[in-house]
Amino acid sequence: MNGDKLGDDRLFELMVQKLYSGVICDTMDELGYRNQAMNERLRPLENDKTIVGRAKTILAVDVYYVHDNPYDLEIEALDSIKPGEVAVVSTNRSSNNGIWGELLSTAAHMRGARGAIVDGLIRDTSRIVELGFPVFCTGFKPVDSRGRGLVVDYDCPVEAGGIVVHPGDLVFADRDGVAVIPSGIVQETVRRAIEKVERENHTRKELLEGKLLKEVYEKYGVL
Amino acid sequence: MNGDKLGDDRLFELMVQKLYSGVICDTMDELGYRNQAMNERLRPLENDKTIVGRAKTILAVDVYYVHDNPYDLEIEALDSIKPGEVAVVSTNRSSNNGIWGELLSTAAHMRGARGAIVDGLIRDTSRIVELGFPVFCTGFKPVDSRGRGLVVDYDCPVEAGGIVVHPGDLVFADRDGVAVIPSGIVQETVRRAIEKVERENHTRKELLEGKLLKEVYEKYGVL
Amino acid sequence: MNGDKLGDDRLFELMVQKLYSGVICDTMDELGYRNQAMNERLRPLENDKTIVGRAKTILAVDVYYVHDNPYDLEIEALDSIKPGEVAVVSTNRSSNNGIWGELLSTAAHMRGARGAIVDGLIRDTSRIVELGFPVFCTGFKPVDSRGRGLVVDYDCPVEAGGIVVHPGDLVFADRDGVAVIPSGIVQETVRRAIEKVERENHTRKELLEGKLLKEVYEKYGVL
Amino acid sequence: MNGDKLGDDRLFELMVQKLYSGVICDTMDELGYRNQAMNERLRPLENDKTIVGRAKTILAVDVYYVHDNPYDLEIEALDSIKPGEVAVVSTNRSSNNGIWGELLSTAAHMRGARGAIVDGLIRDTSRIVELGFPVFCTGFKPVDSRGRGLVVDYDCPVEAGGIVVHPGDLVFADRDGVAVIPSGIVQETVRRAIEKVERENHTRKELLEGKLLKEVYEKYGVL
Amino acid sequence: MNGDKLGDDRLFELMVQKLYSGVICDTMDELGYRNQAMNERLRPLENDKTIVGRAKTILAVDVYYVHDNPYDLEIEALDSIKPGEVAVVSTNRSSNNGIWGELLSTAAHMRGARGAIVDGLIRDTSRIVELGFPVFCTGFKPVDSRGRGLVVDYDCPVEAGGIVVHPGDLVFADRDGVAVIPSGIVQETVRRAIEKVERENHTRKELLEGKLLKEVYEKYGVL
Amino acid sequence: MNGDKLGDDRLFELMVQKLYSGVICDTMDELGYRNQAMNERLRPLENDKTIVGRAKTILAVDVYYVHDNPYDLEIEALDSIKPGEVAVVSTNRSSNNGIWGELLSTAAHMRGARGAIVDGLIRDTSRIVELGFPVFCTGFKPVDSRGRGLVVDYDCPVEAGGIVVHPGDLVFADRDGVAVIPSGIVQETVRRAIEKVERENHTRKELLEGKLLKEVYEKYGVL
Repeated sequence: MNGDKLGDDRLFELMVQKLYSGVICDTMDELGYRNQAMNERLRPLENDKTIVGRAKTILAVDVYYVHDNPYDLEIEALDSIKPGEVAVVSTNRSSNNGIWGELLSTAAHMRGARGAIVDGLIRDTSRIVELGFPVFCTGFKPVDSRGRGLVVDYDCPVEAGGIVVHPGDLVFADRDGVAVIPSGIVQETVRRAIEKVERENHTRKELLEGKLLKEVYEKYGVL
Repeated sequence: MNGDKLGDDRLFELMVQKLYSGVICDTMDELGYRNQAMNERLRPLENDKTIVGRAKTILAVDVYYVHDNPYDLEIEALDSIKPGEVAVVSTNRSSNNGIWGELLSTAAHMRGARGAIVDGLIRDTSRIVELGFPVFCTGFKPVDSRGRGLVVDYDCPVEAGGIVVHPGDLVFADRDGVAVIPSGIVQETVRRAIEKVERENHTRKELLEGKLLKEVYEKYGVL
Repeated sequence: MNGDKLGDDRLFELMVQKLYSGVICDTMDELGYRNQAMNERLRPLENDKTIVGRAKTILAVDVYYVHDNPYDLEIEALDSIKPGEVAVVSTNRSSNNGIWGELLSTAAHMRGARGAIVDGLIRDTSRIVELGFPVFCTGFKPVDSRGRGLVVDYDCPVEAGGIVVHPGDLVFADRDGVAVIPSGIVQETVRRAIEKVERENHTRKELLEGKLLKEVYEKYGVL
Repeated sequence: MNGDKLGDDRLFELMVQKLYSGVICDTMDELGYRNQAMNERLRPLENDKTIVGRAKTILAVDVYYVHDNPYDLEIEALDSIKPGEVAVVSTNRSSNNGIWGELLSTAAHMRGARGAIVDGLIRDTSRIVELGFPVFCTGFKPVDSRGRGLVVDYDCPVEAGGIVVHPGDLVFADRDGVAVIPSGIVQETVRRAIEKVERENHTRKELLEGKLLKEVYEKYGVL
Repeated sequence: MNGDKLGDDRLFELMVQKLYSGVICDTMDELGYRNQAMNERLRPLENDKTIVGRAKTILAVDVYYVHDNPYDLEIEALDSIKPGEVAVVSTNRSSNNGIWGELLSTAAHMRGARGAIVDGLIRDTSRIVELGFPVFCTGFKPVDSRGRGLVVDYDCPVEAGGIVVHPGDLVFADRDGVAVIPSGIVQETVRRAIEKVERENHTRKELLEGKLLKEVYEKYGVL
Repeated sequence: MNGDKLGDDRLFELMVQKLYSGVICDTMDELGYRNQAMNERLRPLENDKTIVGRAKTILAVDVYYVHDNPYDLEIEALDSIKPGEVAVVSTNRSSNNGIWGELLSTAAHMRGARGAIVDGLIRDTSRIVELGFPVFCTGFKPVDSRGRGLVVDYDCPVEAGGIVVHPGDLVFADRDGVAVIPSGIVQETVRRAIEKVERENHTRKELLEGKLLKEVYEKYGVL
């Protein structure tokens, strides 16, 4: 990887192969972006699935009655997803409905979404797993959003897991959590992170040879 | 399934084969029972186990010393379980003891219980899994209930996961959570839910063919 | 096992083979130590891993800037771990960084540590699993401790999971949770616990033969 | 008070003079409405202020950017308040802005509102107290709703303090908390509650004469 | 105060005059009783009221239906209160009812109770204040305990505010919180605490003269 | 107030006279500093006290044994307070001790401190009120920090109420909460805030004359 700017397809491929959320956050730390990891309440449906893609943001809120056209904005949002995107759903920390489920997963998957990050509860978990569509969420509830949750906006800044996410930010989620890379620093972050992985490989190798942490840290300055 | 009333054995068999907690809650929504899913803190010991059965309610509370006959009511409750029942244990949201464990699971299992829903902590998790007895709970703690928890009543209304459960209510629990069907609407709920599953199959199929959510929703009105 | 005092290697072997956290806590209850199980927020990275060993305590706290020598005490603590020890990390309930990760796991592992109990968040989860080093923690976060967490002391009393742990206390952690055996009662606790396991085997066997809980409890007095 | 239906002005006057939230909830209990008291997180700005009036519901949600016309619905909602109403503001449990403040209090007060019940944070507390406009809320935060909170609906069912409130329900709030009387049972509740107060007066009087609780309870059946 | 053992009346008088919860806790720290202050969620109804007296313990739990004789044990407990006692009510951390109210306050007051410490919610707050009966609690809710809370035991060990309280322990509660002095160390604690107050008076005096903390601490060793 | 830079004494005087936390936060919003108000858990000891001054930061953490010189850094920190400063105490969200009390208040007061902002619990509340030293805190606990809390650093960046505070930042705390003005924007913030107060006065006045919110907002653009 030289200084050229990578297209998203190549970028995602490289990131899945070589990177993990920890080294991405460390790299953003170096660049002065120290608050880019979502709250630990967001967990993957399956531990071995990594999500990388551009944020397609959706803002839902709790409501207490059935609206006339409850799904209008939700349908618009889903149908406008583009390949390479990741649905990032903010719910005002809702715990009263399963805002995301199998049908939305299927719809998103067919539009090319690479996964969903839901700061809220989901349902139809088994079928989502069967579909092979990776989702992170804060828990599960079998009740429908109809009359309980409503999409009020999309393609706007949202807060998910305590982090403000803008449309087009790059989301990288693995077993350790969800990192959000602001769109303006994606190339720089990925380039540096790949270099950083090398240094950690040395540290790991020498520790596995039995060296003391002190020696290895003095040599590589990585912990 | 025509209009006839089904016996519990046939009912449970049908429900395990054809239904899931989401479609059951959607159906109860239609019938005006909108608050029948337990809190998301209740999670299954194993994701692939479904529980369906009639609620055998047990009410336990935290205590702070060893009573003279600490297990009298607990033993009575367990020994009076009948085949097809599910132990539903309310603990006043206890987090100071593992109120349910291997021996209670074994005793319940031998009486014909189909599982246990514990709004509290459990222990002996590995052996319960070996026994093949499905349990939902809010977490784990290795300490005994002796001098910490006490069964004070059973076969009475209890609250578990924020839902009032009456003896004989039907409990359906899967990976998405725990739904409680009041005894009076069980037949109606199951009949409608089975029909509803059909409609969702159409929606799913057409989404998987690549149709937009908008088209499919306009056609089937299901999301 | 007669009255002789067992060395740690033989003790750990016996405990892993014959005991589990529940029977250990029950035994400590009998000895009057009723508050020795950590909070249920501490969960194992892998359900089938048991940790047993002597507590190597480490105290970390949240900080809000990068110190001059941020890792000095942390490195000292890790490099001084001895075979048979378990790192017990207190963090003042931190949720702002992954205080423990792959490199610390590797370093601890190479010094002979039998696992780590972290009352805080960790990162590099996949690699820790690959390494085969068992860890209990309260969750996951991909961000580094640099400028966020600092080791301020070690080999001192700490609180982890709500339990005060002294250096040299014996830690036993399995799928049900984490038990802490004060160093002065280790031999007595293990001896009694092994006897207790026998009695529970009888209870289980007779329940599995279909006897009522009442009969079995009257016979063995164990529940 | 005979069987005649009272107008709101006379009703509110009677209620403030003779009733308190406890006796109102007890009366609703008798009528089978057992879940009509808001969560205890809602507290009065001043302990000695009672609010009684018809619910004017407002639904606000957290947002993360400044909308084009952020105050349109909020202004409409406030300007349409009628005398005898109480603003009931639901915020999806927001804690990121002071959704209610002095200017809204002044506007509501001038339209004839009798107070505000805010399930969220407020600001300009000192000036609201000076104005003499009674407010209940869950806490305080000096930041504006601009770019943080948005009114998305009003005159619709909302949830405040865990209770669904419909426009026109009667709200009664005093130092013990906030009771919501569904509009259909207001007359019946008030009539019965006034009678009930009489019986409690007897109980209190005899207890103050030194009688045992047992005697007094046997005589009046009130506790 | 010489080495003689004081009667409770004289003891309470002395304590109210000379002591406060802080110096009592410091003294218990010196005696090795370091966990004797209740959780900070317990707050006084009025900041300027101090409670001192012997614990009359009451254990209540949440229930979900109306029992046949719901008040039997509650009435027994209240009617058996003796002068100099303080009701200490444990509720399993209930937040669903106002377990304590005006009538119980009046009954307790007439039996000679010096106050109540309720680890739960109360109601009838204004009238309790008028009555002049001091109460500490975790909050307020206007709903009755009938069908929601039940006294299941009294004069037994209970946990309130995270502290196990035995009947006859001495409770001292002021604006800073609630301290529990085990009955066996009451005389020793009070004797030492009164001496300790003297030393603090010197420290305060010299600080008010403008001396540095360093000088004063070196001289008196109190902070 | 012209463009001249004001000295701190004059600045504080102006701010106490003319400003309040709400208008300060609104002004910082305009300047792009949108996250400068502490968490609502921090509340004033007395509602009518305002604190304004320069942050003197102190970092304390929970510990679990008595250190050799537990008060060394704490004494240094207190004795180095300068007139016009406000102690800002971070405790890693401690709830196990009263880290701040009367003696520290007295010492700080005599050095010229204008108050204390404690993100933790305090004790000796009554005497602090008598002393007239304003304190904000998250609650109260009568136990000493000795063996429970330790000052580990001071004059360093800390986090209090969720906000990172640097030494020298300006703290403004009133009944609505605690605002932190970064040192570099103090003059600009104060200048603009004073102008903003004028505009709000117009809005208030016209609302009090009975105008609709719509009219007034269209005229002044303030809400």
